[in-house]
Amino acid sequence: MTGPAHAAGRAHAAGRAHGAGPASRAALRRFSFNQATAQHWPLPDVVAGCVAAGVPGVGLWREPVAEYGLGRAAKLVRDAGLAVTTLCRGGFFTADDWREQNLRAIDEAATLGAPVLVLVSGGLPAGSRDIDGARARVADAIAELAPHADAAGVTLAIEPLHPMFAADRCVISTLGQALDIAERFDPGVVGVVVDAYHVWWDDTVHDQIARAGEWIAAFQVCDWITPLPEGVLLGRALPGDGCIELRRLREAVDAAGYAGPIEVEVFNAEVWARPGEQILAAAIDGYLREVV
Amino acid sequence: MTGPAHAAGRAHAAGRAHGAGPASRAALRRFSFNQATAQHWPLPDVVAGCVAAGVPGVGLWREPVAEYGLGRAAKLVRDAGLAVTTLCRGGFFTADDWREQNLRAIDEAATLGAPVLVLVSGGLPAGSRDIDGARARVADAIAELAPHADAAGVTLAIEPLHPMFAADRCVISTLGQALDIAERFDPGVVGVVVDAYHVWWDDTVHDQIARAGEWIAAFQVCDWITPLPEGVLLGRALPGDGCIELRRLREAVDAAGYAGPIEVEVFNAEVWARPGEQILAAAIDGYLREVV
Repeated sequence: MTGPAHAAGRAHAAGRAHGAGPASRAALRRFSFNQATAQHWPLPDVVAGCVAAGVPGVGLWREPVAEYGLGRAAKLVRDAGLAVTTLCRGGFFTADDWREQNLRAIDEAATLGAPVLVLVSGGLPAGSRDIDGARARVADAIAELAPHADAAGVTLAIEPLHPMFAADRCVISTLGQALDIAERFDPGVVGVVVDAYHVWWDDTVHDQIARAGEWIAAFQVCDWITPLPEGVLLGRALPGDGCIELRRLREAVDAAGYAGPIEVEVFNAEVWARPGEQILAAAIDGYLREVV
Repeated sequence: MTGPAHAAGRAHAAGRAHGAGPASRAALRRFSFNQATAQHWPLPDVVAGCVAAGVPGVGLWREPVAEYGLGRAAKLVRDAGLAVTTLCRGGFFTADDWREQNLRAIDEAATLGAPVLVLVSGGLPAGSRDIDGARARVADAIAELAPHADAAGVTLAIEPLHPMFAADRCVISTLGQALDIAERFDPGVVGVVVDAYHVWWDDTVHDQIARAGEWIAAFQVCDWITPLPEGVLLGRALPGDGCIELRRLREAVDAAGYAGPIEVEVFNAEVWARPGEQILAAAIDGYLREVV
């Protein structure tokens, strides 16, 4: 989707944003930097970089938080004045220890002050072809976890993943499916994640976003590029480098009543290879140009 | 999805089917071998192999047919007593010469005696993010082609491709979308392709198949395996090697009133590397074990 002229334009814009110092705090009011976007940037550097750039929030992942220490990470982020917008992730309900893992993830979100725990449901059980059964088990598992989440003040946010992940990563493939489950609960207890990368192709997505309303617990953006890499997980691009109508989706979640954070979350080996500060600057630049 | 034991079982079954000679003609009554399954098998060998195996039909592609010669290919297949179940493919409505190419493809289908021309719509125009616009143009293009197809006695069969192809190959991503277009026409003029690989993940697919009824113009099968290869085009497996409930989908199209051919169509570099006869034997074996 991106020609050399486009790529050069982006780099130029990023350079300007970088050179001009932090973007205005008002413009970044809803911006959140998901730490997976800079996979190799240590947590303290993520926090320092966000503070320096005037970024108000971060999305965190359980593994790097555990590596740094949960209590230590909570203090680090709190002392820096950053909001933790989401914790990624619970779910994977096909795992033997799914109950224990998810209860623990809820507690970790509460400790970090994250209002939202992102749930990726998991795919088909090994050797199974029963996708209806797998989907039913997701709904059952969430019902079982909801009281603990409610008590902890954490919203369980069901994230539909692109249908290319249905077999091995997430049997919840559309926003409609996620809502079919979430609507059984109060919106503060169970909601949905609208991630542009996973739902942009869906001809019903704008109707489903309108339907979602107060069940929208998180909004994440990155961009779609082709060709997809082997395994397809790391094919996500910075906002503006692909073909998703990101602003239109942002306007749709806003129109549905969502006024919360907008996380940039990119999985891309080429992006990850850059220095963390540059990744953050590029994420901010794409956000300002393509999303808000 | 496939463990060593499973793979060994498949090879064993294929070996038995091969050793026992052609499967019974009754069992293969609806079987059609799409020539793309044996990408490197020359057309005369495909035809001879199908005749030897008791296969009644083949799905052909425009490029190898043109290479062999259209009239010559039509005669070859007709003389062998094989039915041409589909011609792949028209569509790609983003191309400058889409009108000329599709009118020609309709004529080629008529010459080959293929009742169905498969349409893959094409993705987004270069540099565009307007997926709604691209989808509207597909409907307009089909409306423009329909009279010529009607006159030629060829059904235009809209094939929804998996959403992972939405950007670069096919903006029609679900059976529901394909039907939204096809239902504007008589079923003999415009229909849909139900390809298990592209629709299996969709939680509404069984409702949409029931809705499709007489608009089902073709049914194709292969299987879903992970990890997907780079570019994701060649990730399709032989029936039984993946996680799709193929028999359930076959029963659904039957229940919707479809009684036509069932094409095995596999794109897989490892499969393509085998001798054509072995690929055909494996396709027949998978069909008999997993589909009928």
